[in-house]
Amino acid sequence: MHKADIIYAFEEQAGKKFVERVWGKRPTFAVVIGNTETAKIPGLSAAGAVPAITDFTPAADVELLYYGRCKVIDGVPVTPTGVPTPGIITMSALQLAPMSKYAINGGVRVRPHTPYFELEGEPGDDIRTGKALKDPKRVYENAVLLGRELAKDCEYLVIGESIAGGTTTALAVLMAMGYDGAGKVSSSMIDNPHSLKTDTVTAGLSRAPFSKEEMRKDPLKAVQAVGDPMMPAAAGVVAGAAESIPVIMAGGTQMAAVMAIVKGLAPNVLGNVALGTTRWIVEDKSSDVRGIIKQIGNVPILAADLNFGASKHDGLRIFEQGLVKEGVGAGGISVAAFLSSKGKIGAKEMLEAVDSNYVKLMSVMHK
Amino acid sequence: MHKADIIYAFEEQAGKKFVERVWGKRPTFAVVIGNTETAKIPGLSAAGAVPAITDFTPAADVELLYYGRCKVIDGVPVTPTGVPTPGIITMSALQLAPMSKYAINGGVRVRPHTPYFELEGEPGDDIRTGKALKDPKRVYENAVLLGRELAKDCEYLVIGESIAGGTTTALAVLMAMGYDGAGKVSSSMIDNPHSLKTDTVTAGLSRAPFSKEEMRKDPLKAVQAVGDPMMPAAAGVVAGAAESIPVIMAGGTQMAAVMAIVKGLAPNVLGNVALGTTRWIVEDKSSDVRGIIKQIGNVPILAADLNFGASKHDGLRIFEQGLVKEGVGAGGISVAAFLSSKGKIGAKEMLEAVDSNYVKLMSVMHK
Repeated sequence: MHKADIIYAFEEQAGKKFVERVWGKRPTFAVVIGNTETAKIPGLSAAGAVPAITDFTPAADVELLYYGRCKVIDGVPVTPTGVPTPGIITMSALQLAPMSKYAINGGVRVRPHTPYFELEGEPGDDIRTGKALKDPKRVYENAVLLGRELAKDCEYLVIGESIAGGTTTALAVLMAMGYDGAGKVSSSMIDNPHSLKTDTVTAGLSRAPFSKEEMRKDPLKAVQAVGDPMMPAAAGVVAGAAESIPVIMAGGTQMAAVMAIVKGLAPNVLGNVALGTTRWIVEDKSSDVRGIIKQIGNVPILAADLNFGASKHDGLRIFEQGLVKEGVGAGGISVAAFLSSKGKIGAKEMLEAVDSNYVKLMSVMHK
Repeated sequence: MHKADIIYAFEEQAGKKFVERVWGKRPTFAVVIGNTETAKIPGLSAAGAVPAITDFTPAADVELLYYGRCKVIDGVPVTPTGVPTPGIITMSALQLAPMSKYAINGGVRVRPHTPYFELEGEPGDDIRTGKALKDPKRVYENAVLLGRELAKDCEYLVIGESIAGGTTTALAVLMAMGYDGAGKVSSSMIDNPHSLKTDTVTAGLSRAPFSKEEMRKDPLKAVQAVGDPMMPAAAGVVAGAAESIPVIMAGGTQMAAVMAIVKGLAPNVLGNVALGTTRWIVEDKSSDVRGIIKQIGNVPILAADLNFGASKHDGLRIFEQGLVKEGVGAGGISVAAFLSSKGKIGAKEMLEAVDSNYVKLMSVMHK
């Protein structure tokens, strides 16, 4: 029995088998970025100090992973109350465990000053229009090709996301595909604005140019109407890569929505997939990731047993109150760091690294 | 002694050591694409039926590798006399030998409908302006980061290029850096237009905003004045990857110019590098790739001993007259296919595959 700081939060037996397959192997990390006007609806996202700045958050997150600092903004992305991006966790995992990292542009307004994969995606519109994306099929198809290429050289893939407003579009796409997502999606805020999310989704669905039936049958129609540009890119890469290698879908309820899309388009690959997330997601009382995954299939949830309660910094201890929770693949990449190091890296090492990066990043911010 | 259909065309001992290191290993292929207005100078390039269409050639080449057909143009890129792109060789090698493939955008006007890496590059201007590129340093730095990431998952890298007009910019950059390139660069045409190339280069150098000394000291200044967008991208990826893994620079005299850039910016990596090209290049009487490499250092040249003399098709037999010769990494990827298969794939298997692809592609064209 392999020992690592992870919680088998759903489908424990399948989870242990998945861990067995990737134990000690070298992961490859990819983060899919996108922007959506949905993020700018006041009160919806905490992924940026003010709504307008959410356009910069994904590019800044990618730069953080490459340079240990951001270029498109000063300092690092923070919530309106100054709590840092979960990218600080991802960055720390990349420092502790050797793995390659790639950014994938699903459709951003602000591009990172780093190398990244381009897939012909475009930024998403406000889902209340019912016309969120122009051509998710083209992006999905490009992404499948990319996933297949990545799989040829990788032992296994960890894929995360950075897109503000993403839990609302996740709810929308889940509902459009006929899943029960109401009250189940997570939030980067302590008080999850479920009713604002539901209102936004309802408005979008009522204006969708497709029938209910069409969107249930074709996930890309659901995405086109009320999704975001991260989704077809992430779903395609998962579909292409998991044909041949294990894939950790690194995220919470947003990745659960991507998994539902994968199920609709490439159901055979799900046996190669696990959801990798944080303890904060699986213990969250204001969302229900298990309740979503359960509707998709018997895909295991592996949660990194991170705990920032002993941090020296208020801005990190507050993660224990349920702020931020997940993003930029933080949970899944932590799981991968634990497994690739055969348990030598764990929650303690992660907190030390995150504490130390926090000091560096916040001192840059206040210069 | 490993047996494969390759010619040790320069620095044989170093070449045999290089072959020893990669024998039986799995290559990763990358092709760097770019466009330059220089290609549109009449009489300079055969990489397109007419000069204006050279903008489409690199994207079409990449699509050929992904789909076995092109999307941005009907048919495939051909010379003015209808001879197909060397991408048909690259495509055949990819079918015969398992390897991952990536396109890297150095700066194109026409983007391929495939996934590709973006590096913040832009298309190049006519080098006669002396201001060919805007910011090759940014592209080079992004490319170094990309090379390092690719190296983490790859056993060794094969990097080719597709950019029309590239031998003229190669000559220009070699001369700007103080190398003797006159009469030494290759051509996709049977009659190498050396004097037109030299006139073009002389015009560019006379308008360069940097002094001779500045361009000799800093290859990126030479590239900025009279280079093309493929160069900083390819040089950076080589510099980043060859820090830790073997790299086959797949091309003829264009790649020799890139190697000269690498020598100026990251000389330590050259011990990890070989030039991989075709017999048509090393036997070409109208150019002198050894004469260029000799000025750089003791880097081996490995040439795929391809011979299309026995082809069923005029359009392929004419390669033996010196038309096309190299491009899209054709020679280097053939070398890699031979070595990764431990010699099981050779010149005969390549000709069979190319013959068969020729029939398929030409029948599409004439529909």
